[in-house]
Amino acid sequence: MAEGNTAAKKESAGVGSAGKRWAFGLDIGGTTVKIGLFFLPAEGGQGSASPAAWELAEHRAIRTRTSERNDDPGMPILGDAAAAMGEMLAERSLDFSDVLGIGMGIPGAVIDQHTVNRCLNLGWGVVPAAEIMKRLTGVQRVLAENDANAAAYGEMWRGAGAGFRSAVMVTIGTGIGSGIIWNDRIIAGSHSAAGEIGHMKMNRGADVSDELEKMAAAPAILAKVQGILESGTAAEGYTDCLPTSLSAIPSAELTVKDIFDAAKEEDPLACRIVRETGDILGRALSYVSCVFDPEIFIIGGGVSQAGPILLESVEQGFVPRAFHASRRTRFRLAQLGNDAGIWGAVRLVTEKK
Amino acid sequence: MAEGNTAAKKESAGVGSAGKRWAFGLDIGGTTVKIGLFFLPAEGGQGSASPAAWELAEHRAIRTRTSERNDDPGMPILGDAAAAMGEMLAERSLDFSDVLGIGMGIPGAVIDQHTVNRCLNLGWGVVPAAEIMKRLTGVQRVLAENDANAAAYGEMWRGAGAGFRSAVMVTIGTGIGSGIIWNDRIIAGSHSAAGEIGHMKMNRGADVSDELEKMAAAPAILAKVQGILESGTAAEGYTDCLPTSLSAIPSAELTVKDIFDAAKEEDPLACRIVRETGDILGRALSYVSCVFDPEIFIIGGGVSQAGPILLESVEQGFVPRAFHASRRTRFRLAQLGNDAGIWGAVRLVTEKK
Repeated sequence: MAEGNTAAKKESAGVGSAGKRWAFGLDIGGTTVKIGLFFLPAEGGQGSASPAAWELAEHRAIRTRTSERNDDPGMPILGDAAAAMGEMLAERSLDFSDVLGIGMGIPGAVIDQHTVNRCLNLGWGVVPAAEIMKRLTGVQRVLAENDANAAAYGEMWRGAGAGFRSAVMVTIGTGIGSGIIWNDRIIAGSHSAAGEIGHMKMNRGADVSDELEKMAAAPAILAKVQGILESGTAAEGYTDCLPTSLSAIPSAELTVKDIFDAAKEEDPLACRIVRETGDILGRALSYVSCVFDPEIFIIGGGVSQAGPILLESVEQGFVPRAFHASRRTRFRLAQLGNDAGIWGAVRLVTEKK
Repeated sequence: MAEGNTAAKKESAGVGSAGKRWAFGLDIGGTTVKIGLFFLPAEGGQGSASPAAWELAEHRAIRTRTSERNDDPGMPILGDAAAAMGEMLAERSLDFSDVLGIGMGIPGAVIDQHTVNRCLNLGWGVVPAAEIMKRLTGVQRVLAENDANAAAYGEMWRGAGAGFRSAVMVTIGTGIGSGIIWNDRIIAGSHSAAGEIGHMKMNRGADVSDELEKMAAAPAILAKVQGILESGTAAEGYTDCLPTSLSAIPSAELTVKDIFDAAKEEDPLACRIVRETGDILGRALSYVSCVFDPEIFIIGGGVSQAGPILLESVEQGFVPRAFHASRRTRFRLAQLGNDAGIWGAVRLVTEKK
């Protein structure tokens, strides 16, 4: 890595903005800000370096300091991130004049890749995040995206979606979100709400409890199992799945991982819960397919760490409900894990459009 | 019109392919083939003519002659259309060398704007429609699209979607289809199945009877009312909507128009049916919005001729289920009626990309 850095530094010395060989991808979350420093290796014998040649040089995470104060928008989060980036550069005898661009993934609505419109996790209202970061660093090429969109963009570039032109990446964790990629571009939606499939109301009513993420995200999966274990009446319909190995774990300590692990051991209750989760997710993805008809669904996020067992359940829920032409749409697990966001973010500023 | 034609003809004389001022938009349906002959008026004082300046010169419809024979793909439909276009040109002392391009809307899946992959209404299997039309006419610029996509493209250009960048146009007739437009481009889907919202299965099951178009298209609306009128038991749940003025019409003669007309007169059963139809359509469009988040929904097709009463019902079904950011998505009735298809088809070949 040290050799590559030196070569890249030498290469960039004295060249203009087009020759800059360093860039940042940030994934700003409610708990940590992940910072990826990327570089474009010096050209080899294969002709000019393509955007796909960008490599991760270093990866750092800092704590997200949210603030109740609204008189200094974006602070202290963006200031902390700028300071950390400055340190990472200084350690390599670089500074922001060596940086081609900074891309940011943010867990809220982002308008025109510049302005954040409401982000509850960060305590932000309207924050012109790209402008603020430009001012803090002097870097002129700064772009932001919704974090689910950035993760999808990263997976399309270097992960499970590589080689495909259209994809929907579904992230299943404490909530459910998705990023829609078409012709290698992010579809953000006219109210920055494209891909908000977690808010589909899956039953006839219009109640929040009918939302997909209230049925299939991690807290819902956990609450369902806890309800069954704690209460005889709540177990109605599940009595043929009992006894279960899950009852050996104190209810308050139960995790989604425990449930998926038990399903891999063919515990009847755990298998049933995974099947039900896959069924409702598969139904929701059949709707996505009837609208957008992607080449591939990529399943990521904490719940996806259950692995193939969840993927198979989702596909089993999808196939019988999909329109015939789309029945063979591919399903794959995400490959970049927690790094998808920084890869997608850096791509925002390194990809030629 | 005659003056414009003469001016356009004069203008095109002696100019190259870029200067051609005539184009065709075809809407190939199971019953008729609609043929629009369009022209670009001579440039005025405002500088160069923009693509938006194309005008409809003449509009003709011929009967669709479907064939059981598979040994001559696309025939006799495409041959009949080519002959009719030739006549329309000859009547103006023009020929195919004056034609910039031919766009076609086709009621089936169209791959890469060239090849039709299965079209039940026309009795077609795999038909390289664009190539065949090129051969028949000598016109080199021939492109095809799914008819719902073409109609959406037409409405975006000269109808209810003018001025918007993203839209979903929903066509409700004997079936339900939609066309998805983003950044002024048609999203066709990776299996040519984007916008196939009529096949969303709206209940938990995977039965065909659960599909949106089996609940909310014209035959479903009609069958529901006929069932209520004919059978006391089927009227269960609707007894408080009786008596109804619709019972004055013999069941076999009842049309969807009768039902909407009765709803406008506040007939209780008709109002209830319109409300239920709007509710399920609004729910489906809330799913579309959670995926694609368009600026506007355009409602067209035979059932939309019910007018504002249906539009309001759909919006009432949509708003409480939509994600908060998308709740103010606009709803409008289509404006081009049966002509949307030919306008969208001609745009395929006249728009610079």
